[in-house]
Amino acid sequence: MRTRLPLLALAAALAAGSALRADEGMWTFDNLPVAKMKAAYGFAPDQAWLDHVRLSAIHFGGGSGSFISADGLVLTNHHVGRSSVQLLSDRLKKDFIKDGFLATSRDQELKVPGLELRTLVSMENVTDRVAKAVKPGLSEAEAQKARREELARIQKEVREKTGLSPDVVRLYQGGETWIYAYKRHTDVRLVMAPEMQVAFFGGDPDNFTYPRHNLDFTLFRVYEDGKPYHPAHHLTWTSTGVKAGDLTFVVGHPGSTERLATFAQMLHAGEFSLPRRIKAMERQRESLLAYGSLSPENRRQVNSLIFGLENSIKASTGYVSGLRDRSAMDRIRKDEEELKAKVAADPGSDAKGSWSAIEKALEAQKALFEESQFANARSGAMLGSTLLGQALTLVRLADEAGLPAEKRLDEYKDANLDAVKRRLLNERPFFPALETAQFAFGLKEAAAGAPPAYIKAILDGRTPEAAAKAAVEGSKLADPAVRKALLEGGRKAVEASTDPMIRMARILDAPNREFRKRMEAINAVIAEHGARIAKARFKAYGKTVYPDATLTLRLAYGPVAGYPANGTLIQPFTTFGGMFDRAAGWGPEAEHGAWALPKRWMEKRAALDMDTPFVFAHAVDIIGGNSGSPVVDRKGELVGLIFDGNIESLPGHFFYDGRANRGISVDARAILAALDKVYEAKEIVKEIRGK
Amino acid sequence: MRTRLPLLALAAALAAGSALRADEGMWTFDNLPVAKMKAAYGFAPDQAWLDHVRLSAIHFGGGSGSFISADGLVLTNHHVGRSSVQLLSDRLKKDFIKDGFLATSRDQELKVPGLELRTLVSMENVTDRVAKAVKPGLSEAEAQKARREELARIQKEVREKTGLSPDVVRLYQGGETWIYAYKRHTDVRLVMAPEMQVAFFGGDPDNFTYPRHNLDFTLFRVYEDGKPYHPAHHLTWTSTGVKAGDLTFVVGHPGSTERLATFAQMLHAGEFSLPRRIKAMERQRESLLAYGSLSPENRRQVNSLIFGLENSIKASTGYVSGLRDRSAMDRIRKDEEELKAKVAADPGSDAKGSWSAIEKALEAQKALFEESQFANARSGAMLGSTLLGQALTLVRLADEAGLPAEKRLDEYKDANLDAVKRRLLNERPFFPALETAQFAFGLKEAAAGAPPAYIKAILDGRTPEAAAKAAVEGSKLADPAVRKALLEGGRKAVEASTDPMIRMARILDAPNREFRKRMEAINAVIAEHGARIAKARFKAYGKTVYPDATLTLRLAYGPVAGYPANGTLIQPFTTFGGMFDRAAGWGPEAEHGAWALPKRWMEKRAALDMDTPFVFAHAVDIIGGNSGSPVVDRKGELVGLIFDGNIESLPGHFFYDGRANRGISVDARAILAALDKVYEAKEIVKEIRGK
Repeated sequence: MRTRLPLLALAAALAAGSALRADEGMWTFDNLPVAKMKAAYGFAPDQAWLDHVRLSAIHFGGGSGSFISADGLVLTNHHVGRSSVQLLSDRLKKDFIKDGFLATSRDQELKVPGLELRTLVSMENVTDRVAKAVKPGLSEAEAQKARREELARIQKEVREKTGLSPDVVRLYQGGETWIYAYKRHTDVRLVMAPEMQVAFFGGDPDNFTYPRHNLDFTLFRVYEDGKPYHPAHHLTWTSTGVKAGDLTFVVGHPGSTERLATFAQMLHAGEFSLPRRIKAMERQRESLLAYGSLSPENRRQVNSLIFGLENSIKASTGYVSGLRDRSAMDRIRKDEEELKAKVAADPGSDAKGSWSAIEKALEAQKALFEESQFANARSGAMLGSTLLGQALTLVRLADEAGLPAEKRLDEYKDANLDAVKRRLLNERPFFPALETAQFAFGLKEAAAGAPPAYIKAILDGRTPEAAAKAAVEGSKLADPAVRKALLEGGRKAVEASTDPMIRMARILDAPNREFRKRMEAINAVIAEHGARIAKARFKAYGKTVYPDATLTLRLAYGPVAGYPANGTLIQPFTTFGGMFDRAAGWGPEAEHGAWALPKRWMEKRAALDMDTPFVFAHAVDIIGGNSGSPVVDRKGELVGLIFDGNIESLPGHFFYDGRANRGISVDARAILAALDKVYEAKEIVKEIRGK
Repeated sequence: MRTRLPLLALAAALAAGSALRADEGMWTFDNLPVAKMKAAYGFAPDQAWLDHVRLSAIHFGGGSGSFISADGLVLTNHHVGRSSVQLLSDRLKKDFIKDGFLATSRDQELKVPGLELRTLVSMENVTDRVAKAVKPGLSEAEAQKARREELARIQKEVREKTGLSPDVVRLYQGGETWIYAYKRHTDVRLVMAPEMQVAFFGGDPDNFTYPRHNLDFTLFRVYEDGKPYHPAHHLTWTSTGVKAGDLTFVVGHPGSTERLATFAQMLHAGEFSLPRRIKAMERQRESLLAYGSLSPENRRQVNSLIFGLENSIKASTGYVSGLRDRSAMDRIRKDEEELKAKVAADPGSDAKGSWSAIEKALEAQKALFEESQFANARSGAMLGSTLLGQALTLVRLADEAGLPAEKRLDEYKDANLDAVKRRLLNERPFFPALETAQFAFGLKEAAAGAPPAYIKAILDGRTPEAAAKAAVEGSKLADPAVRKALLEGGRKAVEASTDPMIRMARILDAPNREFRKRMEAINAVIAEHGARIAKARFKAYGKTVYPDATLTLRLAYGPVAGYPANGTLIQPFTTFGGMFDRAAGWGPEAEHGAWALPKRWMEKRAALDMDTPFVFAHAVDIIGGNSGSPVVDRKGELVGLIFDGNIESLPGHFFYDGRANRGISVDARAILAALDKVYEAKEIVKEIRGK
């Protein structure tokens, strides 16, 4: 599972939810379906239970985690902590990804530069206060300003009164506005990481699937003033574990869902944007595979890129299959018809034309996409080139610095400027041949058919390969010192630069700005009408439904349960024995060693009880961002660690189908057994056991 | 996997095959695709190899088996040998099904009453000889008679010359006629059977699926003159086993396929007959579950019935899903269009109107089905009642005995009469309450809507429940002695009988005869036009294709290989460790103990190497009837034992899709390890190893 789903660039506000089903729901802590839970399980959490798990939970960037000891030990997924493990490996010239890491004493724990964790200390519903800030008779622009100012005022109050970091959280597409106040932890140290081969056993083939056998956990520790931090709350480790049928709770930060998108938006995603993206990714993978086939070193450079692509392809394919599930789509259309009827019958609703307005906007988006796709920056790169992406940032910084704040592009406003500069100056491994190959691929894609003028200008009569080669070889931007000098030199330095990437960035600047403006106008229409539909839905159904995921704390619940698939019933638990079965059943060579086990595991095998529950499936409604979420039982004790969903859970981005959608968790018993028997991390085991 | 697929009551002759694909094919021993095999694998069997495996192979009723020692030891599946194990259990008041059986010395081997095995000693193509027997100028009836007489003559010659049993085998829907001559073995003794729980681990949920962990084997021994038989050929046990990618061969008796059915026939099966049958079976299952819920003893009585139903439902659902696979069906339609074009261009072909004639016949079949479904006898029972089935047999025997042979119904002709009488007098466990419930269910189904006159006559104003209860309570036919007396008393005794079942049988006799006649007329049309199409296909493609399965010896081949499913790649091998993983992952209670292991296996676990390859998947084209087939390697050594296909193989009844269709085999290494370490059958291990 990816830590966060970067799916679909649909604008923020989307249409509202459908009726409650099964154990569906990513519930906010102020609004659990208590009656329903009690009816189904004879149990619902009380306030003390909720406070305890909330204050033990950790917001881990795009993922989740939890405190699991009185000395600030933090549990999350290996794949959530992976970038930290990689960063430390790079700095210390080690390979902790491959070899794993264990601090056998606290002074061996390694501080992760830049890593910040947060705990959610308080939540306040400020919807009314913000509404009251809008005095009668104000224009919409004045009203917006009044709301913004009131929110800023509240945040300032919270900061001053509590020292906490307040975030504005909009739920129900703006139906409610909350201030979530976080305690920040900035001294976070790596304590233990298993080998990638066991954390990610089964590799890409097994990703997003079940039965699984992944020890996907990592341990960090929060420090304060140079000493282990003592959190007010932490989760107690289970002494019993769960069994099939047991009720579980997931406490974490689902990233984003689009369950309230209109039928037309889902159709657009399933029939146009996703299939298109899948094809583009498949072409890019081909190109990376070709590059990787040239040498083992080449292959090493592209491994994680290919890997990321393959996962995105698998995930997107899963979404498309959901969006083509006729019974699910019929249900969605039916729910929409029901809401439309309510809106039609409500003389006060302004959403009457909103569905068709969104449909029209989607058509415009489609057309604009064709025109603009190669002038867009994507994950820092442009046309596949990271240098070109950095060049555009330099050109923009020089220009935007001179503009008044309100005229700047969003990412160049004061609040974001630091982050932009930091990213620009970051040191990253740079491989010129790979950069050339990626850029050539991007240019080739752009040059196919009838390329737009700006692409012709960049190519300047050369082949994509020649243009890419010349630009990468001619550019000095790979050197962070050069980027720093240009950044500090400002507009003058950038204008004087003859760096080929800077020259190309100048060509792309204008069309990119124009396309952005047009795309934003379309998105504004979708947002506006999405908000109207959301308002109508909130009016019709209120908080009987849960809001779409917003990467904020939620509670999901449901029992440990197998499910029907592959012609049979899939087992609720896997065991250590199952992992060795698959390792032996495939052999160490298959699929680039996807099912090969680390040496340590083969050696320590006899020390393990093969029947130890390893991974379990449970019927909980989760999504990317929930990675690393603690799974607790009725007592609020830690019984597992979410790390993925099954393949049937992918359409959960759009709708929940409890028949086969399962969250997949490492069993707490497996983590403890591995720490004890394989890694012999006796001190950590004692700490976790609270002894 | 069932030993034989009782699928679809389509008449015999169906339309001819499609072009060769992948490692598709159930090849006759006289016509291997040698060039193709050599091109793909650098290997094709020579005549000595073929003779060796053929003479080692065994025709095991509806399944397959092989000689695996010089002393006549026979290997087949547990589920092929199960009825023998059950029969011996009943006779000896033991439960060898549950507890398993092991003869620790030869004098403990138990003779199975009535079991007959056969080895295929010779095959002769008599197509030309039979054709020559038809002198010019004969009418079609005279020609048929001449052919029949010639075949009888040939069979007599074979019998007299060799002492073998000759079977007439029609391949390519009559394109070729062969005489297959078998050596019969009638003294067959049970040597070893594992516990059902390990032979059928995973129960009904896992049936037809993979990954699997079933020790689905049983050992028999052939005796001659009271001594172990020494076959001229037997398979040598592998000393190496296979690995992923290794070429395997399956030597066995695929039961029946309908790959050459017309597109319309497949549509008829996928859209009408199969869905209807599935629904009927689901209703029947409900009724049996209700009966079983009344007491543990009730449940015991219906377990195997429910089980058989669930398997048929799963299988039929698999067929339907194949028949709704658009790309496969498009291919089938395209192949048919190609053949139609050839037929249209061939002035000599009489098949021009055959496709539409079959379509019309299918429509008639549909209509007749509605009318006649409750007057049909099915697997010995009528309207759910076995007593009523036996009563009809008694009524018919009395009537038919007086008729000349050519006027009798097929099953009452001299050659079949003995079998009918034997079945009638068989002693079987009889449960009056279950009989009543089943009969009541059958009558209720028949009485729904607008019941035909014969059903009204049977009900005679009573409810289905009351009618069933009265008939079962009033009938004496459950007593074999009563049936015997009626049989021996002949027409007079039967006519004098006032048994309520006999009375009901008299009511059903006439409509059943009428419907049969009409159905046979329709089937004759389908057969006639199917044969014309087959002839056209044989003319167009000859023996470049393989004939549909006919429960005669065939060779299939292909590599050990995983396949894509469930979002990932499925492993080519499972191991003993995987079985314990699933036992622990489910626990012994789940699904009526489907994944519970026998005590012996839990106790002997430590003696086993968990990495022992247990079951493997290989891309071979097999079907029901192949159960128990030996799997051999290039050397002709025994490496495995076919016991099932994966869920993706079910549509193989209609077409072969090599991407995911896999045969599933017990690994020879697992059988040997289990015999050695779990059952400690040291003598058998030595014998198998040839020591």
